[in-house]
Amino acid sequence: MSDYLENIGNAAKTASAAAAKLTSEQKNDVLLKCAEGISRSAKDILSANNEDMERETELTEALRDRLKLTDERIISMASGLRQLAGLPDPIGQMQNVKTLPNGLIVGQKRVPMGVIAIIYEARPNVTADAFGLCFKTGSSVILRGGKEARKSNSAIARVFSDALKSEGLNADIVQLIEDTSRETAIELMKLNRYIDLLIPRGGAGLIKSVVENSTIPVIETGVGNCHIFVDKSADFSKAVPIIINAKVQRPGVCNAVEKLLVHEAIAVDFLSLVIEELKNNGVQIRGDKRVISLFPDCAPATDKDWDTEYMDLIIGIKIVADLDEAISHISEHSSHHSEAILTENYSNAQRFLNEVDSAAVYVNASTRFTDGGEFGFGAEIGISTQKLHARGPMGLTELTTTKYIIYGNGQIRK
Amino acid sequence: MSDYLENIGNAAKTASAAAAKLTSEQKNDVLLKCAEGISRSAKDILSANNEDMERETELTEALRDRLKLTDERIISMASGLRQLAGLPDPIGQMQNVKTLPNGLIVGQKRVPMGVIAIIYEARPNVTADAFGLCFKTGSSVILRGGKEARKSNSAIARVFSDALKSEGLNADIVQLIEDTSRETAIELMKLNRYIDLLIPRGGAGLIKSVVENSTIPVIETGVGNCHIFVDKSADFSKAVPIIINAKVQRPGVCNAVEKLLVHEAIAVDFLSLVIEELKNNGVQIRGDKRVISLFPDCAPATDKDWDTEYMDLIIGIKIVADLDEAISHISEHSSHHSEAILTENYSNAQRFLNEVDSAAVYVNASTRFTDGGEFGFGAEIGISTQKLHARGPMGLTELTTTKYIIYGNGQIRK
Repeated sequence: MSDYLENIGNAAKTASAAAAKLTSEQKNDVLLKCAEGISRSAKDILSANNEDMERETELTEALRDRLKLTDERIISMASGLRQLAGLPDPIGQMQNVKTLPNGLIVGQKRVPMGVIAIIYEARPNVTADAFGLCFKTGSSVILRGGKEARKSNSAIARVFSDALKSEGLNADIVQLIEDTSRETAIELMKLNRYIDLLIPRGGAGLIKSVVENSTIPVIETGVGNCHIFVDKSADFSKAVPIIINAKVQRPGVCNAVEKLLVHEAIAVDFLSLVIEELKNNGVQIRGDKRVISLFPDCAPATDKDWDTEYMDLIIGIKIVADLDEAISHISEHSSHHSEAILTENYSNAQRFLNEVDSAAVYVNASTRFTDGGEFGFGAEIGISTQKLHARGPMGLTELTTTKYIIYGNGQIRK
Repeated sequence: MSDYLENIGNAAKTASAAAAKLTSEQKNDVLLKCAEGISRSAKDILSANNEDMERETELTEALRDRLKLTDERIISMASGLRQLAGLPDPIGQMQNVKTLPNGLIVGQKRVPMGVIAIIYEARPNVTADAFGLCFKTGSSVILRGGKEARKSNSAIARVFSDALKSEGLNADIVQLIEDTSRETAIELMKLNRYIDLLIPRGGAGLIKSVVENSTIPVIETGVGNCHIFVDKSADFSKAVPIIINAKVQRPGVCNAVEKLLVHEAIAVDFLSLVIEELKNNGVQIRGDKRVISLFPDCAPATDKDWDTEYMDLIIGIKIVADLDEAISHISEHSSHHSEAILTENYSNAQRFLNEVDSAAVYVNASTRFTDGGEFGFGAEIGISTQKLHARGPMGLTELTTTKYIIYGNGQIRK
């Protein structure tokens, strides 16, 4: 382990003890100071961002869009921090408190996670979001953003360190790793001696690298190869708008639908409707053999398509014999983020809800609702597609842990 | 990945879908059949265990004791399975159900984990415990026991496969890895494509290897370098019995105390009492310099002692200046399992509860209570010392996960 990361880890651990002692009032005051700081430093942040944009001329347009900061995005960062200050603090809640027969009082207290590390890519606004969420829940945070955004991230993180210092707090509560090499990222993933939780925020490649290399407990977020199954009994007047909404409303996000499975009994009628509507909305179709035989002007899907998250105006369509084939296709190919059945059949709806093993399973609604904001959480760190600790949209509580506290008066075990 | 493990993983995944569909009644019936099977096959199991014992003549006495099965241990395995059948099933519970403003009904449903793998060492009874807990919570399980117990484990697992088959169920709900090589264990830890959760049950070496190698989410269990801090205001008449209980009642377990920190203001008086009592109970003392200067017949502690879980009749004793030094020593050296403060001072008790970051934190009670049975859980898979997903004693609920289910009637996102 390099001294560089060893020092960062050690400082984060010390700072986490300081962060854990803060009251909700103190944390909210700092969050408001940070929001003010972001607004006040808008010029510096935009100028740092401009340096990043001018250096990174080779990036694709989509990546340049993620990297770019504007007045509006700065305002949105600041208002995100202010909104966090207004949310209830989960720290300190007690649950399952009981008195044992021997008089011991045992309960689970919600406490900060400790040290959280976030590895992310080109979006500089993640620097503000991630710091805010971790700080609100009493943890220190180590941020490792993409090299594309290094000047922007630095300018934003400096605002937070300055705000912490001006309140007389330990500025290591937030640390940005300035060395953005891949080697240092891999080393960071091995720092389980100091870090309690590592969250990757980014594409499938980043998440795979974290899962393969990390010795720190990880929460996987975000990859969404989402399916909608249109059952024989689906109400077409609901089904078509749901599919268009799930595909078209915002195609670049993880809860957009990527695959459509259609019951063979209604395939001709339903696909005639929905394919036309998808095409009117600029969506490219990739169909299996049966779809192609019915609609020869669609492109053929390859084996790889069924496992791909397009994040684009593309949809894969497959005709299936029945609910069993739909469930088994989803089991094999889904990233287990969000899936929906469109049906008027009660038993099929119940079977789909029971047997599809994904973070969010819908009947007769768009997959686009899988979102902390839509579910009413107020803030969201990401959408977990794993089963341990958190599954689906993660709010503030998912960034915390519990400990048992026990009040005795001399009890010993018999 | 070898075909051997690939096939086991794939079969476990298929079997997990079958296990997840079982009702509580069906699962409880099978658990009772398994308990009967264990009793009926006692002779075969004991004979297989005898083969293991006769082959493994090189083991230490402590390990031979863990490996050895007796009539009593067979009865205890069967009664453990019967007890599981009688516990409430957490699967299917709904929580946080609410209707969103758009009419969507959203709730979190408790569902099986999927595929759980358990890697353990010489104790063959873990084969029965681990299968029972995973099956009760609707998951399939892959068991990889130590090579010392391979015949015993095989005989026990066969009883469960036979019980599953006789009920017409998928026998791959329980699979025992017969190849007990280290290479295969490491490969198993990389099978995140099929396995949702990996739990190591064993010593610090096994747990370290799993944390370093696993790409599957892990729950670390059990290492307990537990501390008791005796504050200036401690009531000696409570403190001495608590310390003797925590050290002596069962020294080979993870919630036994390993280190005693004593406030300097009472060190001479208190240590005179407790050291004599510890010695009367056959406990070896390893003291820091100040302890040795006061009690020259105690052995000196080395730096390594402060990080060591003895699991034996040995205790490390250190004199500290105050509560701050006690908390900071614990923060640096503890495995964060269980710690206690013995004090009559209200503010010190509160500070210790707040600032010590361990799975269970006590005031004026023995650390030996950190246990699923003592906490009233009915069954326990282990004691988690990590912060993600489960912390402290884990009952049935900790072996499950949740998914969001959403009932709509045509909702699309605006």
